[in-house]
Amino acid sequence: MSVLIVGSTALDSIKTPAVENPKLLGGSASHAAVAASFFSPVKIVGVVGKDFPKKYVGLYRKHKIDLEGLQILPGKTFHWVGEYEVNMNNRRTLLTELGVFETFTPTLPESYRKSPFVLLANIAPSLQSHVLDQMQRPKFIVADTMDLWLNIALADLLKLIKRVDAFVLNDSEAHQLTQCDNVFAALKKIHKLGPKYVIIKKGSHGSILSGPRGYFICPAYPLHNVCDPTGAGDTFVGGMMGYLATARGSIDANIRRAMIYGSVTASFCCEGFGLKKTTTVKRTDIEKRVKELEKATRF
Amino acid sequence: MSVLIVGSTALDSIKTPAVENPKLLGGSASHAAVAASFFSPVKIVGVVGKDFPKKYVGLYRKHKIDLEGLQILPGKTFHWVGEYEVNMNNRRTLLTELGVFETFTPTLPESYRKSPFVLLANIAPSLQSHVLDQMQRPKFIVADTMDLWLNIALADLLKLIKRVDAFVLNDSEAHQLTQCDNVFAALKKIHKLGPKYVIIKKGSHGSILSGPRGYFICPAYPLHNVCDPTGAGDTFVGGMMGYLATARGSIDANIRRAMIYGSVTASFCCEGFGLKKTTTVKRTDIEKRVKELEKATRF
Repeated sequence: MSVLIVGSTALDSIKTPAVENPKLLGGSASHAAVAASFFSPVKIVGVVGKDFPKKYVGLYRKHKIDLEGLQILPGKTFHWVGEYEVNMNNRRTLLTELGVFETFTPTLPESYRKSPFVLLANIAPSLQSHVLDQMQRPKFIVADTMDLWLNIALADLLKLIKRVDAFVLNDSEAHQLTQCDNVFAALKKIHKLGPKYVIIKKGSHGSILSGPRGYFICPAYPLHNVCDPTGAGDTFVGGMMGYLATARGSIDANIRRAMIYGSVTASFCCEGFGLKKTTTVKRTDIEKRVKELEKATRF
Repeated sequence: MSVLIVGSTALDSIKTPAVENPKLLGGSASHAAVAASFFSPVKIVGVVGKDFPKKYVGLYRKHKIDLEGLQILPGKTFHWVGEYEVNMNNRRTLLTELGVFETFTPTLPESYRKSPFVLLANIAPSLQSHVLDQMQRPKFIVADTMDLWLNIALADLLKLIKRVDAFVLNDSEAHQLTQCDNVFAALKKIHKLGPKYVIIKKGSHGSILSGPRGYFICPAYPLHNVCDPTGAGDTFVGGMMGYLATARGSIDANIRRAMIYGSVTASFCCEGFGLKKTTTVKRTDIEKRVKELEKATRF
């Protein structure tokens, strides 16, 4: 089945002491869509400017991503400039140019409205809600977010959370939202806001699912070298949704394995700047790491 | 088979904004010995002063811990005073009184020297080595440590590491020892120092084993409320060694499950001050949580 993904479509300039990496393909929707495309057909909703490089359109197409919902408007593509310190642990935002994103209203093509799986990747919660308003009874809705929306659009976010099946956020965002230091206490509080499934991402420490079958402690794939974690969280949810949309059986029966596939896909994302590594990966590379992760968790 | 455990035997005064908890039974050997006692006979090596409360000797005895190697010397028992902040995340040492520990030389009773399993719990590495010198061909030797010894006794520690089968440390200590931020890169470097097995503890994020069968990603038991993590790392290695000493088959075949038992035993430690909760636990409580952890990691 197909996955509809809305989120940001951006150009990311990622600096390190060694390299510049100007205007790589980035944004939550780009990372999530490429990740989901390994498993299922993907329809993307987003906006770019006239300056959006043709090679990036080609990259989307190479991953067979449906671009009917990608608006190309006069103006500039959303541009983010960030810098890593020597040890690659601290990322600083140097510049954010919203461009055509400033006035973006996601309007779904008719062919998108019946997509059974909807991933509301990180973007303003009012826009995530606006996409949901246009959908016809999706089977499974997942929303991701970031600290920015907790700070400037909390009311919108709380309204959105009530409407989704699964809500995904990272550990520091969960702490900010619930005032709980403990992730399991935080999960309990977030369920009370509506979602049946809550997933807390913990970076290299993996992620935790809380759902009807209890907790699932999902490991991260063991990486010896992290090049650039930008987009890893988006890749995780994208891979998870792509796998879920293609798996037979209930969500409950498949969501754990779907997280493992998301986790493995995210490990490739971390190994290159932007989408550089992810876009070179084959399904067989993913299957190999899933098997390794199975071996590394068996006892 | 029996486990010999050497380490500190102390009185811990653990303050929080709400309670005082003066002079609880503490120390790495106490936590590790109680944890191991759920699975195997334990022989403890340590020193206390004449002020050591009889009720704590009773607590050791209740856990059938062999006390022939526990020296009771004129003077005061090692006393540690620490304080937690409101959110229980930051611990500060207020006072350390070494007492009889200052001149402690662990001398093993004859009946201890053939113990097949040796746990060198956290204590000065020169004392850990001194215990090894007195042993007769143990089957499996594990050493734990702490940042203090990396700071003031690194040469001794490096000498010790060469002699052990498994070396255990936490993630910040691994970083300090190897200058690697990445735990998997750190594990690789630590193997080069000698040990066949290396385990990095990551607190509530679980632990990672690196050994001949590759990595094992060991989860922490999901706790909604952490009362006092003091001794959790000691409890983890103690439980692990206790389980290993009783399991049939090779170390390789059992070490992963042993870590799970250690992890679960440590979860009880975190739920009470000092050894308060751990000493009320029954083997059946441990088995129940092991089953839950199996359920929470299956996919």
